Amino acid sequence: MTINSNYNNLNKSYLFSTIAKKVKEYAGANPEKKIIRLGIGDVTLPLAPAIVDAMHRAVSEMGDATTFRGYGDEQGYLFLRQALCGYYSKKSVKLHEDEIFISDGAKSDIGNILDIFSKENTVLIPDPVYPVYVDTNIMDGRDIIYMNGNEQNNFLPLPDKNISADIIYLCSPNNPTGAVYTKEQLQLWVDYALENDAVILFDSAYEVFVQDKELPTSIYQINGAKECAIEFGSLSKTAGFTGTRCGYAIVPQELKRGGVPLRELWLRRQTTKFNGVSYIVQRGAEAVFTEAGQQQISSNIGYYKQNAKHITDTLSALGIWYTGGQNSPYIWLKCPDGMSSWEFFDYLLNNANIVGTPGAGFGANGEGFFRLSAFGSCENVHEAMKMLKRSV
Amino acid sequence: MTINSNYNNLNKSYLFSTIAKKVKEYAGANPEKKIIRLGIGDVTLPLAPAIVDAMHRAVSEMGDATTFRGYGDEQGYLFLRQALCGYYSKKSVKLHEDEIFISDGAKSDIGNILDIFSKENTVLIPDPVYPVYVDTNIMDGRDIIYMNGNEQNNFLPLPDKNISADIIYLCSPNNPTGAVYTKEQLQLWVDYALENDAVILFDSAYEVFVQDKELPTSIYQINGAKECAIEFGSLSKTAGFTGTRCGYAIVPQELKRGGVPLRELWLRRQTTKFNGVSYIVQRGAEAVFTEAGQQQISSNIGYYKQNAKHITDTLSALGIWYTGGQNSPYIWLKCPDGMSSWEFFDYLLNNANIVGTPGAGFGANGEGFFRLSAFGSCENVHEAMKMLKRSV
Repeated sequence: MTINSNYNNLNKSYLFSTIAKKVKEYAGANPEKKIIRLGIGDVTLPLAPAIVDAMHRAVSEMGDATTFRGYGDEQGYLFLRQALCGYYSKKSVKLHEDEIFISDGAKSDIGNILDIFSKENTVLIPDPVYPVYVDTNIMDGRDIIYMNGNEQNNFLPLPDKNISADIIYLCSPNNPTGAVYTKEQLQLWVDYALENDAVILFDSAYEVFVQDKELPTSIYQINGAKECAIEFGSLSKTAGFTGTRCGYAIVPQELKRGGVPLRELWLRRQTTKFNGVSYIVQRGAEAVFTEAGQQQISSNIGYYKQNAKHITDTLSALGIWYTGGQNSPYIWLKCPDGMSSWEFFDYLLNNANIVGTPGAGFGANGEGFFRLSAFGSCENVHEAMKMLKRSV
Repeated sequence: MTINSNYNNLNKSYLFSTIAKKVKEYAGANPEKKIIRLGIGDVTLPLAPAIVDAMHRAVSEMGDATTFRGYGDEQGYLFLRQALCGYYSKKSVKLHEDEIFISDGAKSDIGNILDIFSKENTVLIPDPVYPVYVDTNIMDGRDIIYMNGNEQNNFLPLPDKNISADIIYLCSPNNPTGAVYTKEQLQLWVDYALENDAVILFDSAYEVFVQDKELPTSIYQINGAKECAIEFGSLSKTAGFTGTRCGYAIVPQELKRGGVPLRELWLRRQTTKFNGVSYIVQRGAEAVFTEAGQQQISSNIGYYKQNAKHITDTLSALGIWYTGGQNSPYIWLKCPDGMSSWEFFDYLLNNANIVGTPGAGFGANGEGFFRLSAFGSCENVHEAMKMLKRSV
């Protein structure tokens, strides 16, 4: 018996558990201080009434013999996949229900999708990056090439024709940087992928925060993307589902490699290793896409956007370089006075009682940068910004 | 870009989709016939009131700012893991909460657990078998050795000292055969695993159907099992959660391979590729283990057991060989008149309008056998048995 030895190559400690430990220590030593968490990207507003009502109805159905539901449809209930088709059609993206796979969240899908690809593929990952992209590939033993995001390219790296890669990770609006690719920039990526027979794994978890009408909210708004991209969506940030759990993957019918439709491989993977999402949750997710649901969540998103604006206004006033915040719930700032990411983490915790996320935790290029999230309460964000002004 | 070529080695068609196709064709040609489904193992009774109440409360909490929950605890909420510790203590099994990982179902865990093991390991799988054990290993390219279940050993194969294996699948009460290992038999398996440095993956999804007090309902009731076994539990059949989705994996602290605690590897796998189960569902699952919940689900289980008894009584009266049914919701019978599994499937569908599951779909040794499930309504089971008597 041998274990998967690739696990030995993983970094021992997960970013957020290190943060949690430091915060716990500080809180233990300073019980009188109010700590404001602008770190981990968890939402704070409750589920919208339309969602709550739909889930109450679904729970009641499950308790009644005449409306009880057992195993659901393989790819998720048709009512939800149709609702998503409707949502995408408003983005001018035409999808077929068969191309949509409902899941318990984008994190699961982004990890599990690798099952259908050979371990021999080379992976292209931006740095800084959401650690899950890296760790899941290390677990499989794939070669990883990093592409540099930095102040010069506004943390939006573009394809390099001298590099050959098979699997490409893109996240826009980006976690952690909040930067958003334009259509022209994404077109360069799609063209590169098509030329290299590569597949783009496009993480659109933050698309609902895009307010600039010119910016893309789906990779399928780009010509040729259906032949080279899988898109991962999530209701976690869109509708406050971090604790309710629902996401989806889109694998277009046109997307084939080695003559095999990837949709068929993913269907086989999911029907073998997954049994679908709770009926109750799928009904809640369906409600997100009703007129009432859309109105209610957009009011929640507006609330977080106000927070983001208050943070970016404060940073501008302080003369601190940042990206994101405009079309994203994340603000990515340059640590003042040449501080390293973890130095600024400690400084902020000790002097302003603010918890943020050190950029270095997202890769080498994150060193010297710092992520703030707009998901706190308005009061807390205002208090935090007051403290920040005083202490920087 | 190359796909995972192991997928080419999978059987093209999944057992239950073939059945669905045949049934659809028959129903299309015979619209006046009432077809009774005793095939796929899906439950039919609604969720118990205690579970429904708990989920209503949880939905309301999620809609209220003061009680809303975002991301949950890494391994699942402590309240549910503590409830499971309590459930296991009644089986005389002492677990620590850290050893329990809540998931969306045993199928996910059984598939995903393979991530932590090397592809070089040899796998020992009973035949007949739940197809997921086989397919998930084919997807990884592992060598599989089959062990024969047959009429002679009552479909309960025992270890063969001449065979060396690293990963061993056991399911008791068994799907598809309904056969249940005794403590003495499981002890032989645990001893074998310890001697071979192997790990047993123990699927206990049907443990709640065991009524014989002498039979084990957890592998951890066997001496030494904590050093060599991972147990997978499910609320699908226990509490009607096939559409609600909740299960758990138990990875004991004592279980190490190559000096590494497997619990740590699984924690790393799950925190990287999974984000937990809906809070609402976890509250429903917690209610299963309350006094009211236990009483209510045992009444449901009793209902299915009555069905199983009616099926086995009928088979006995007809002189048809079978196993299972006593401590299991599945009855595994020998097709009469030397019919093959699929011949009997067609015969039963055409002559008695009963849908069952051909044993051949579970492996070579299943040929000539057939699975019936006790999850139908009492009325349907009685009607089906009347039809069976008439047509065999």
